Amino acid sequence: MKLMLHKESNMPLYEQIYMQIVQRVQGGILKAGEQLPSLRTVAGDLQVSLLTVRKAYKLLETKGYVFIQPGKGVYVRGKRKITAKPEDPYEWQRSLPVHVARSQYLMNRQKKYYDFSQAVLFPRLLPTQFLADEMKEVINRNQMLLATYGPVQGDEELRAEITKYLKDHQGLTVNPSDLLITSGVQQGIDLIAQTLLKPGDTVMVESPCYGAAIDVFMNKGMNVISIELDEEGIRSDVVEAICQKKKPALLYINPSFHNPTGTLMSVQRRRELVDLAEMYHFFIIEDDSFGEIYFDDLTLPPPVKQFDKSGHVIYLKGFSKTLAPGVRVAAVAAEGPVFDWLYGVKALMDIGSPLLTQKAMIPFLKTNRMKNHLEKLRTALQIRRDMTVEILSSLTTAAFTIPKGGFNLWVGLPDSIHSLVLLNEAKKQNISFLPGSACFVHDPEHQYIRISYSLLSDKDLQIGMKKLCEVMRDVQDKHSPYPFKS
Amino acid sequence: MKLMLHKESNMPLYEQIYMQIVQRVQGGILKAGEQLPSLRTVAGDLQVSLLTVRKAYKLLETKGYVFIQPGKGVYVRGKRKITAKPEDPYEWQRSLPVHVARSQYLMNRQKKYYDFSQAVLFPRLLPTQFLADEMKEVINRNQMLLATYGPVQGDEELRAEITKYLKDHQGLTVNPSDLLITSGVQQGIDLIAQTLLKPGDTVMVESPCYGAAIDVFMNKGMNVISIELDEEGIRSDVVEAICQKKKPALLYINPSFHNPTGTLMSVQRRRELVDLAEMYHFFIIEDDSFGEIYFDDLTLPPPVKQFDKSGHVIYLKGFSKTLAPGVRVAAVAAEGPVFDWLYGVKALMDIGSPLLTQKAMIPFLKTNRMKNHLEKLRTALQIRRDMTVEILSSLTTAAFTIPKGGFNLWVGLPDSIHSLVLLNEAKKQNISFLPGSACFVHDPEHQYIRISYSLLSDKDLQIGMKKLCEVMRDVQDKHSPYPFKS
Repeated sequence: MKLMLHKESNMPLYEQIYMQIVQRVQGGILKAGEQLPSLRTVAGDLQVSLLTVRKAYKLLETKGYVFIQPGKGVYVRGKRKITAKPEDPYEWQRSLPVHVARSQYLMNRQKKYYDFSQAVLFPRLLPTQFLADEMKEVINRNQMLLATYGPVQGDEELRAEITKYLKDHQGLTVNPSDLLITSGVQQGIDLIAQTLLKPGDTVMVESPCYGAAIDVFMNKGMNVISIELDEEGIRSDVVEAICQKKKPALLYINPSFHNPTGTLMSVQRRRELVDLAEMYHFFIIEDDSFGEIYFDDLTLPPPVKQFDKSGHVIYLKGFSKTLAPGVRVAAVAAEGPVFDWLYGVKALMDIGSPLLTQKAMIPFLKTNRMKNHLEKLRTALQIRRDMTVEILSSLTTAAFTIPKGGFNLWVGLPDSIHSLVLLNEAKKQNISFLPGSACFVHDPEHQYIRISYSLLSDKDLQIGMKKLCEVMRDVQDKHSPYPFKS
Repeated sequence: MKLMLHKESNMPLYEQIYMQIVQRVQGGILKAGEQLPSLRTVAGDLQVSLLTVRKAYKLLETKGYVFIQPGKGVYVRGKRKITAKPEDPYEWQRSLPVHVARSQYLMNRQKKYYDFSQAVLFPRLLPTQFLADEMKEVINRNQMLLATYGPVQGDEELRAEITKYLKDHQGLTVNPSDLLITSGVQQGIDLIAQTLLKPGDTVMVESPCYGAAIDVFMNKGMNVISIELDEEGIRSDVVEAICQKKKPALLYINPSFHNPTGTLMSVQRRRELVDLAEMYHFFIIEDDSFGEIYFDDLTLPPPVKQFDKSGHVIYLKGFSKTLAPGVRVAAVAAEGPVFDWLYGVKALMDIGSPLLTQKAMIPFLKTNRMKNHLEKLRTALQIRRDMTVEILSSLTTAAFTIPKGGFNLWVGLPDSIHSLVLLNEAKKQNISFLPGSACFVHDPEHQYIRISYSLLSDKDLQIGMKKLCEVMRDVQDKHSPYPFKS
């Protein structure tokens, strides 16, 4: 493990060392029981004083991330047994200066039955039968589809249908030739980051933020700055203050039913962000994964993209959330020279997304089915949201704002509960959720968790939530605020 | 357009400016008719003298990439009309320091009937019917497959089958748990580059090299060094000489039926490369896209990966070439901590490849079908290779080495033919091929073309090749060696 310092950063060096190790522990790159390099090694590699490294290690110990075995070394805390493997032939890889610091997926490899950790729909709410039939139809009509590469930009007919969909359902006007099909929104984020950013660029995100977006930016060596939200969305005055000091390359936002907090950005705030992007020439990634899922007969504001007239906003719309994760189709809307750059990089990423699923979803989008389907989804998810809110508020003192749409509830834990301690205990009851720490850029806040009420059946949701509340009360009584300490 | 200089590079500054513009023109990022920034702007941006920029622009003019309109500016040569668009709202994007310099796919958007430009199989040679039926079966058995994300690592059953396949068909021993499924080999290359490299790292490639691999490395800001081949493959003595001067991070190779030249690397050379990787601790990407397609009853040497005992070689095997491009399934084999890093980054790239196609190919791999299918492919492609060789050598004085496997013939054009002039004329006859220039890292060589004999039917191959030979003789008589000059 080699670390990198940004010597021009405002952050003290010991804090940078501390952060980078915390990120690796949290991102699953450094595992429980692994030994950290010695003070001397780190100091030598980074050309800093021993004192600086010692300060960082001390802080890691205080915060409960590592423990020090006198005379032996410093180890990552956790349950895995420490075994020395002197003959490991792959050990040389650990000394590489690798920049993969975090990936929330590395931590989530173990599935639990009461799964509140994924913002994914309950499979029976999805039009799987229709899609399956249509896929068979597509194969019958044209097997040769499998034998050729599709267009890198994505199927033309699909792009035309998505254009109509965006107009009808999101109030967004785009041109089919300005759409590029990707394998899900996640690939869209990665594509834009690969195309537009270089290490050291400043990227602004909401705080908290969708963890897998943070991970993309952090792993590419960006200088990620997080900006607080209020009830209208990301604070545009803070965005402006940052623009006056630095030259940010990009702002990543979830304006409609923000992941994880569920916040809906006001129209005023949307306009302000576009104004700022035009003035300071940064790109905005508008990740609109949840826009269709609004509750309580809300009137949805237009996407941020709709206010953009000069190619500053790159809009992402996915269909994994509303049609099916197995479909893996999303669209990126971008105008100007940047479109060709994205096209070129998408080709280099995978030579274009497969045609079969693109073709299969066209008939669903074309008919009234999609409209009816979305209405059904809104109803079903509103019921789930209400249930979750009801159980949580009757059984715990957890704090939250009721979301007006989306799949997630952002929960502030009753004081003294550490999210990772809670997760540890919950897993024993076959329950999982996303610890809020995954949604912060630097020093993670541990008093939050994200509950996705989308994946379980009504019944399992009820049972699971009640169990989770029990675990919460249990932990509240018994445990110390730091994980893994006795 | 903003350029970047590597001030510590051995290459003179004017040459770096020249190269970067050439790459953008060739990569389709700078289009015919586009105006280059003024001498003063470039000099100011890069903090170099006006003389340096003038030298670069002069060289661009001499080589035929740009023309100078006195009093107006410098423009990219080509057929597009120059139109001033002062009111273009997206113009601001052009001043961004974007690092997308090349993507061969940007140039290949127009399909031609006699298509020798793609190393893709003639669709009727593929087991499309079987795969289509199996896909319908999979959907019938388990629709819910569409409604969930598959494992990020790829389907477990498929990984077990690929393990067997690699053992039986390539003589490679790997563990199913060390395989990661990607959407094609191209995604595998991108994944490894994203995971292991940072801008400025030294990457070694063969010269010539698969263009889309060069593009991935160049666009990520790598210092790409190309190393010549001899009849045994990449020159390992040159690799060693580079290791003694620099610390390369990676070597990318196609040992079996190298793309584009068709060279088969000797066993000795394979061993030497692993020895060097172990000694100097760099990774090797072994892209084994064509290993199954050998001719003349050749005995295939084991993959480079087979000699690796310490996780230095990352092996890539794709099934788009032999089963179907629409399948988009490839496997990455890697051991040690690097496996988890790749896993984490793959998750962030697209949350895992779709399950449907993974499930659908299992029965084909499982039975004897794959073995029989590969035998059929070898026969069919050997016939196509022989035809191509026969026509070329009887009708032209082009120079080439007969490949012992693979999809491609690397052709040295009779002197004075420029590959882009030839391509221009060929397109008028509805013919396309890959200009060799796409396969070089820096100053492209224009006297080569790559002919892929895989995509057309026997009959079209014959007609197309004869037409191409005519165009070649025609160009030889009429044209000047530089493109776009009168």
